[in-house]
Amino acid sequence: MKKNISIAVVGLGQIGGYLLNELSKKKNEIEVKTGKKIKISAISAKNINKKRKFKINKKIFYKNPLDIIKNEKIDVLFEVVGLNNGISKKIVELSLKNKIHVVTPNKSLIAKHGDYLAMLAEKNKVNLEFEAAVGGGIPILRTLKEGLATNKIIKVVGILNGTCNYILTEMENSKSTFSNVLKRAQNLGYAEPLNPKYDLNGYDALSKVKILSALAFNNKISKNSGLMEGIENIEIKDINMADKLDLRIKLLGITEIINNKLFERVHPCLVKKDTYIGNINGVMNAVILKGYPVGQSILQGEGAGPGPTSSALMSDLLSILRGNIKYPFGIPSRKRKKITIYDSSKYINSLYLRFEVNDKPGVLSEITKNLARFNISIERLIQIPDKKNKKATIVIITHKINEKNSNKCLQIFKKSKNILQNPTLIRLF
Amino acid sequence: MKKNISIAVVGLGQIGGYLLNELSKKKNEIEVKTGKKIKISAISAKNINKKRKFKINKKIFYKNPLDIIKNEKIDVLFEVVGLNNGISKKIVELSLKNKIHVVTPNKSLIAKHGDYLAMLAEKNKVNLEFEAAVGGGIPILRTLKEGLATNKIIKVVGILNGTCNYILTEMENSKSTFSNVLKRAQNLGYAEPLNPKYDLNGYDALSKVKILSALAFNNKISKNSGLMEGIENIEIKDINMADKLDLRIKLLGITEIINNKLFERVHPCLVKKDTYIGNINGVMNAVILKGYPVGQSILQGEGAGPGPTSSALMSDLLSILRGNIKYPFGIPSRKRKKITIYDSSKYINSLYLRFEVNDKPGVLSEITKNLARFNISIERLIQIPDKKNKKATIVIITHKINEKNSNKCLQIFKKSKNILQNPTLIRLF
Repeated sequence: MKKNISIAVVGLGQIGGYLLNELSKKKNEIEVKTGKKIKISAISAKNINKKRKFKINKKIFYKNPLDIIKNEKIDVLFEVVGLNNGISKKIVELSLKNKIHVVTPNKSLIAKHGDYLAMLAEKNKVNLEFEAAVGGGIPILRTLKEGLATNKIIKVVGILNGTCNYILTEMENSKSTFSNVLKRAQNLGYAEPLNPKYDLNGYDALSKVKILSALAFNNKISKNSGLMEGIENIEIKDINMADKLDLRIKLLGITEIINNKLFERVHPCLVKKDTYIGNINGVMNAVILKGYPVGQSILQGEGAGPGPTSSALMSDLLSILRGNIKYPFGIPSRKRKKITIYDSSKYINSLYLRFEVNDKPGVLSEITKNLARFNISIERLIQIPDKKNKKATIVIITHKINEKNSNKCLQIFKKSKNILQNPTLIRLF
Repeated sequence: MKKNISIAVVGLGQIGGYLLNELSKKKNEIEVKTGKKIKISAISAKNINKKRKFKINKKIFYKNPLDIIKNEKIDVLFEVVGLNNGISKKIVELSLKNKIHVVTPNKSLIAKHGDYLAMLAEKNKVNLEFEAAVGGGIPILRTLKEGLATNKIIKVVGILNGTCNYILTEMENSKSTFSNVLKRAQNLGYAEPLNPKYDLNGYDALSKVKILSALAFNNKISKNSGLMEGIENIEIKDINMADKLDLRIKLLGITEIINNKLFERVHPCLVKKDTYIGNINGVMNAVILKGYPVGQSILQGEGAGPGPTSSALMSDLLSILRGNIKYPFGIPSRKRKKITIYDSSKYINSLYLRFEVNDKPGVLSEITKNLARFNISIERLIQIPDKKNKKATIVIITHKINEKNSNKCLQIFKKSKNILQNPTLIRLF
């Protein structure tokens, strides 16, 4: 690799701006560590005049990032726009085809087009690096690809979405409703101000789970939608009830191999308060790996925000500058296999079910009769009356039951006149 | 790098044996991940006939490892003998001079001769890798060198010795004495059967702290002996008292930069039970990094044993086979600086002091008067009488005080007739 390295940054939002600043601040350090001199040769964003925290050099500004590739001799391009298609895909594709190394924190792009883009990178002998896509500042992908390279990974469990974890923690701490805490999170910059949907419904965490699977199990990124549930239906009632049971609600992302089949899932879980995972609070992320021979490894760190993200982007840059050409997913694309998808209807858990009901004789028996019909046996039942409104909350903790039965059973309750809303289901971890 | 890679393993104890087995089991996987075919061409140990769990190929056995370099064309050598000098140093030195990559888990060798050996490796353009030297299976060194490469690291705190952590945990759980638990640890293979001294007195952890400093702060390995205290003087009384105070005793290794000076230390600490570090139990290791911009990162995993150690050794091998030539300490040796050593007598802590005294009038006042003389003020005092023996235990938690004063003060108590043994001092974290 030549000594002078020309860099382009596409996307000048919160992360792009922070990154630009880091790149100029750490030029000397980068030269000491890698022997390479870096220069920022091009930047691009939708709007040159948008109000930004930092000044941009308008002389190197491109409105259309694709023009950068035509006009400049770029060695490394950062894609920090963040779409899972559109200009994000186009600029990454064009860069790789032009033998330009690419660094991106874009999990949805990688989860959707990672296989194709990795092949493109390998064909053109350049790097496609995406450490920042999972776990923010936690070097989890590098750990899977390198630090634990020859371990047989069996299971990966993570708290992968800082927004959801912040909201759940804050609901517990401040006893506020979901929507109030969401507003607070948006004001603090922990949740997207306009469209937080993809964080809240589990999509963001599932993209990360898919990337983790691909690295842990050497499979192609699964196209399967997986089992995906978000935290939108968690109410303060559930938080309080969990608290009483010495449990805590966490949105977990899990991937594992069960009988040679791949099972990826994201859903809220009730975890014990005195466990490690039960104590990852606020915007923290954590990943627990079970592997052989290494045993259990845990990595924890700040999961989002421009600081941790830039830390990961910079580590990718250094890896490239050290001349360390690597397969984007640790092994050659042609060696990556497809793994059959596990049938999630067989997934077995104890369940927490919360019913909001009319406080009438016969309602409890309606619930328990239906549960019994589907072989769902009850471990614990708590009834909280709301006499004034002639209503009641019934919380049931079940013994272990598969998804098929619990889904079918819950369908039935939808038709009941005395059950006032869809029952809330949270799996026990 | 050529396609066929010839490997030597020097040292065939527990770790060497496990490693040999891993190397043969994972040949195919290594070829897939790196494109290289490995072959074990030479092995060496003191005694060819020693009873081993595994069979060795006597045709490739060398009694003297130095002969391997003369007779074989080796590409990568594993040093798993573990001395901080002697044959360990000789074989590593000779290998590097002969342009052979070296992988070792030998923390005491690296802490003692790492600077020299790193220069030798750089001069000969080969790798010297020692991921397994710190934190067993935790890829902490790679994380500092690569994953967090451009972060400014401010402080590293770790539970770095699995033997000590196991003993402290077991003393608490089983309410047994130090010597009983040590015996149990030796039987289970968690402590050296013949000479556990270097684990118990903090030397092992301090070697690891020195390596962590060098990677976190880009300094030459400090020659300074640092502040080093082990767990040999912790009694079950201290464990029980900590328990009552909702604290737990942990042997911590800490390195940080204070006013541009390097402060490395290993000593028992009283940590709160409900903190992260207070819940790293048994043989687990954990490292907490504070860096900028990444924030706080935590890595946790099994700290010792052949499985985790082999995991780290194999990751080093793969890094070499991928052709990733790196500076052993992340930057060129000539750029590594010397950092002035912080004067540890200025180190300030609240202290836990336990006095065993004759239960006589005036003893308590003798203690408190002397504490006052050295400006040590008392936050809490607990006196537990042992009426039968006319003795008492006095535990004092002090306000913050520097090491200079506390050391001087404790000297005075040595001369007292009524204070029956050296007071036990444990710093509060």
